[in-house]
Amino acid sequence: MKPFLVAPEEAVENLRKSRYRVGVFGFGHVGLTIGVGWGLAGAKVIGMTLDKQAIRLLESGLSPFPEEAYLSKYIENLRTRGLLEVTDDYSYGARETDIKIIAVPVYLSSEKKPDLTPIIRVSEEIGRSLIKGDVVIIETSIPPGTTRNVVRPILEEKSGLKADEDFALAYSPERISAGTVLADYLEKYPKIIGCDSPGSLNLVAKLYSAVVKTGVIKMSSTVAAETEKLFEGVYRDVNIALANELALLCEKMGVAYDEVRAAANSQPFSHLHKPGIGVGGACIPVYPYFIIETALNQGVQLQITQLARSINETATELFIEKIVKAVHFLNIDPSKCRFALLGLSFRGGTSDTRLSPALRILEFIEKTGAEVKVCDPLVEKVEGKDIEILRDWRKAAQGADAIVIASDHKEFYQIEIEEASSLAGRETAILDGKNVISNLNGKPRYRVLYVGVGRPAYLLEPDGSKKKVEL
Amino acid sequence: MKPFLVAPEEAVENLRKSRYRVGVFGFGHVGLTIGVGWGLAGAKVIGMTLDKQAIRLLESGLSPFPEEAYLSKYIENLRTRGLLEVTDDYSYGARETDIKIIAVPVYLSSEKKPDLTPIIRVSEEIGRSLIKGDVVIIETSIPPGTTRNVVRPILEEKSGLKADEDFALAYSPERISAGTVLADYLEKYPKIIGCDSPGSLNLVAKLYSAVVKTGVIKMSSTVAAETEKLFEGVYRDVNIALANELALLCEKMGVAYDEVRAAANSQPFSHLHKPGIGVGGACIPVYPYFIIETALNQGVQLQITQLARSINETATELFIEKIVKAVHFLNIDPSKCRFALLGLSFRGGTSDTRLSPALRILEFIEKTGAEVKVCDPLVEKVEGKDIEILRDWRKAAQGADAIVIASDHKEFYQIEIEEASSLAGRETAILDGKNVISNLNGKPRYRVLYVGVGRPAYLLEPDGSKKKVEL
Repeated sequence: MKPFLVAPEEAVENLRKSRYRVGVFGFGHVGLTIGVGWGLAGAKVIGMTLDKQAIRLLESGLSPFPEEAYLSKYIENLRTRGLLEVTDDYSYGARETDIKIIAVPVYLSSEKKPDLTPIIRVSEEIGRSLIKGDVVIIETSIPPGTTRNVVRPILEEKSGLKADEDFALAYSPERISAGTVLADYLEKYPKIIGCDSPGSLNLVAKLYSAVVKTGVIKMSSTVAAETEKLFEGVYRDVNIALANELALLCEKMGVAYDEVRAAANSQPFSHLHKPGIGVGGACIPVYPYFIIETALNQGVQLQITQLARSINETATELFIEKIVKAVHFLNIDPSKCRFALLGLSFRGGTSDTRLSPALRILEFIEKTGAEVKVCDPLVEKVEGKDIEILRDWRKAAQGADAIVIASDHKEFYQIEIEEASSLAGRETAILDGKNVISNLNGKPRYRVLYVGVGRPAYLLEPDGSKKKVEL
Repeated sequence: MKPFLVAPEEAVENLRKSRYRVGVFGFGHVGLTIGVGWGLAGAKVIGMTLDKQAIRLLESGLSPFPEEAYLSKYIENLRTRGLLEVTDDYSYGARETDIKIIAVPVYLSSEKKPDLTPIIRVSEEIGRSLIKGDVVIIETSIPPGTTRNVVRPILEEKSGLKADEDFALAYSPERISAGTVLADYLEKYPKIIGCDSPGSLNLVAKLYSAVVKTGVIKMSSTVAAETEKLFEGVYRDVNIALANELALLCEKMGVAYDEVRAAANSQPFSHLHKPGIGVGGACIPVYPYFIIETALNQGVQLQITQLARSINETATELFIEKIVKAVHFLNIDPSKCRFALLGLSFRGGTSDTRLSPALRILEFIEKTGAEVKVCDPLVEKVEGKDIEILRDWRKAAQGADAIVIASDHKEFYQIEIEEASSLAGRETAILDGKNVISNLNGKPRYRVLYVGVGRPAYLLEPDGSKKKVEL
C-alpha cells in the first residue's frame, strides 16, 4: 500500500523491505546523494537525469563526480541488489514511483531572479502521474513559499488530488557540500523537514528517520524550512563579505588578517570567516538573491544581504586589479605575460566550476591576449572552452611570469615559494588568492613578488630578505 | 629586581612570591577582574578608581557589582592577605608599582570618534613615575595603533626611557563579559598578547601564563592584538544586524525567526544570531566606530560594518514604533497609557545600563507623559534619573496597559501570558523585546496583544483562540 495510506511505522517497514520505489528527479551531485541515501535505507531508487554521460557511468557502477569517487562502491552495491536504476525518462520515473523527490537545481535568470522553470516542469511531470497515497518531497533550495504557492497548485491541478489529504507534501532541504556529500546527507546534520499538515509531517519525518542517522528537525511549515536553508547561505555570504572588508583593511594597515582572525576566533562567540576572491558555486552566491526577491515582494529591503552580495561580487574584480598591478610592478607587458592559473573550481576539493571566480580570472587573462597554462587536479573540462587542463601545478608554473592561485585544492598547499621560483626560472609574481602559501621566508632563486589576500604584499629576494611593498 | 631586568622565569617566580606590585589603572568591572586575577597569582595589587563608593565597598571586602557578587570572597581573601589595596590616588599607584595595567575605558565623543583622553591621562601619570625594568600593559579596547602611536611616545617622553629596551610594553585585551568576568579572564579563553619586540613579548607572555589558566596567544604586534579585539566586536555587531534584518523579514512573512534560526544553526557552519531591540553596553556598539575611524584614516570604507551599526541603532526606534502601534491597536491614548517597563540593563544578568536600549525606551515613554512602573532585578539606579526601580516584575505589571520587556534577565523568562494578564487586570499589550515568552497558548483572563521580535504579532483571547495580526 502507498505510503500515505498506511501508518508511518508501516511505511518505514515497507521502505526497508524494498516495497517502495523512490524517484529522484534530477540526478546530479545532490540527486545522486539522495538516491544513494534512500537506496541504502532499502528503497528501490529511480534516478532521473538528462546527462547521458552520467547515466553511462552510473550504469557501470561509477560515480560521475571525481571528488565523490567513494560513492562508486555504494552505486555498484545498489545496482547489484537491483536498488538503483538510472534513466533520462522523467515520465517513466514519475509513473513508477511511490515517493518522488525533487532535486533539480534552481538557478538565477540574467536579471538575478530565481528561475523556477525546472521545478515547474518536474512538478507538472509528477502531477500527471500522481496517485493517492504518494509522497512528494522537495530537496532543492527554493524561494520561501515555492512549495506552497507554486509546486502544490501544480501537483493538485495536474492530478486532481489534494495535497496533505490525498498525497503527502514536504520540503526538506539538502545540506550537502561537494567532497563529503554522503556523510553530509546521512551522518552530519539533522534532516530539516517542513510540512503544512501534521499528517505529511509525521510520515515524511518517519521516512527520513529511517534514511539518515542524525535524526530530523520538524518545522512548523514548508515556508519555515525553505527559509532556514536560504538563511544558512545568507549567513555565510554576509560573513565572507565582512571578512573581505576587514581583510582589505588589514592589507592597508600592514597586519595579517589570518593572524587577527585566529586570535579573535579563540573565543567561542567569534566566527570570523576567511576572505576570498569572490564566492562561487551554485549555492552561496545564488541563495541571497532568492531571499532578497522574497523580501522585496514583502516590501522589505535586506540591506546587509544585498551589500554583502555586491562586496563578494566585487572581490573578483579587486583580485584581478591586483594581478594587473603585480604584473605592472614587475614591468611586464600584460599581453606578453606568461600566466599560470592554478585552480578552476569554485573551491578546493570539488570539480564544480559553476560561478567560479577562477573562470572570470581566466576570461580576463584571455582578453589581454596573454599566454596562460591552466591547472586543476579535479576539473576535467570547462563548458565552452577548449583548453588543456594540467593536473600538476608544477607543469603550469614552468616559465611563468605570474602564478595565480584561484582555488584552494589540497595539492596547492604544498606550493613553496622557492620551488615555484625555480620552476618559473625568472622574476615572478605569485598571486595567492587563497592564502595557500604560509611560509614567506626562504631564498627564492629569483626575486618574487608575493601578493595574498588580507596580507601585506612582499618582495622576496634571493638573499632571503623580505620587504613589504605597496602595489 | 624589576621584572624587565631579570629572566622571564625569575619574574614569574617573583610575581608568585608577592615581590611585585601591580597597579591597575581604572578599577571598574574590567579593572577589578584584572586585579583579582593578578592577586590570585600572588601579586600585590593596587587598584585605582575615582569611584568613592566602590572603594568603600572594596575596602569592606565586597564586590561593587551585584552580578559579580561571587567576587566578594576573593576580594576579602586578597585583602586579608594584604594583596589588594584600593585608592583614588593614581599618582601613588604609578609610583609604587612594577607592573602597570591600564584598564580605563575609552568611550566615543559626541561625533562618535574614540575619545582617548582617559588613556592619555593615565599614560602621562605612569610615564612620570616609570622606572627602568617596569612593565606597562594595556587591557582597554582601543583603536589599532594607539599603543604604538599614542601610549608609547607619552611613556617615553615623560620617563626619558625607551619602550622595549628600558621597559616592557604590551597590549593584551580583556575579553570579559559582565556576570562571568573572573572565569572569562582566568579560565575560558586564551589571553591575547601583542608586543612590538620579542623581549617584551616573552616577558609579558610568561607573566600572563602565571595568571590565566588557558594559556596565551602571542601576536606579532600591538596593532594586530588591538585589531583582533575590535574585530570580535564587529563580528557580533554585524551578525546582530543581520539577525535584525532577517527577523524583520520573518515577521512580514509570518514565520518565526527563532524556529528558522534553530534549524539553520543545527549545522556547524551557521551561527545566526538573535535579533534584538538595539545593541547596548560599552563594547559592541562602540568598537565598530574605532575600527571605522581607523579605516577612514587608511582611505578604506567599511561598508558592512557601518551599515550594521546604523541598522542596530535603528532597531530601538523600530521597537518604539511597535510600542506606539500596539497601544494604538488597543485604542489607548498613549499619554494615558500605564506602562510597565521590565529591564533597564543592556542585557540580562548585568546591572550595566550604558547605552542600554531600555533607557531610550524609558525616555520615549516619559516624553509621552504616560505613567510608567520600572522593574530591574539588578539595576539599582539610573544616572540622572530619580525613579523607583522595582525588583519584582509582578509589581510593575499590576494594572498595566502595556508591558514592555527590554532586558532578558533570567527572572523574566518566568513570565507567563496568563499571569501577566491577571496582574494587568485589563486588556493589555505585551511587547516582548527579548522573546522571553515562549508559550503563546493558554487562556489569558483578558485579551492580550502579544508583540515579539522576529515573530508574527498575535491577539490572544480569553477563550484560548489566537490569531496573527498586522500592527
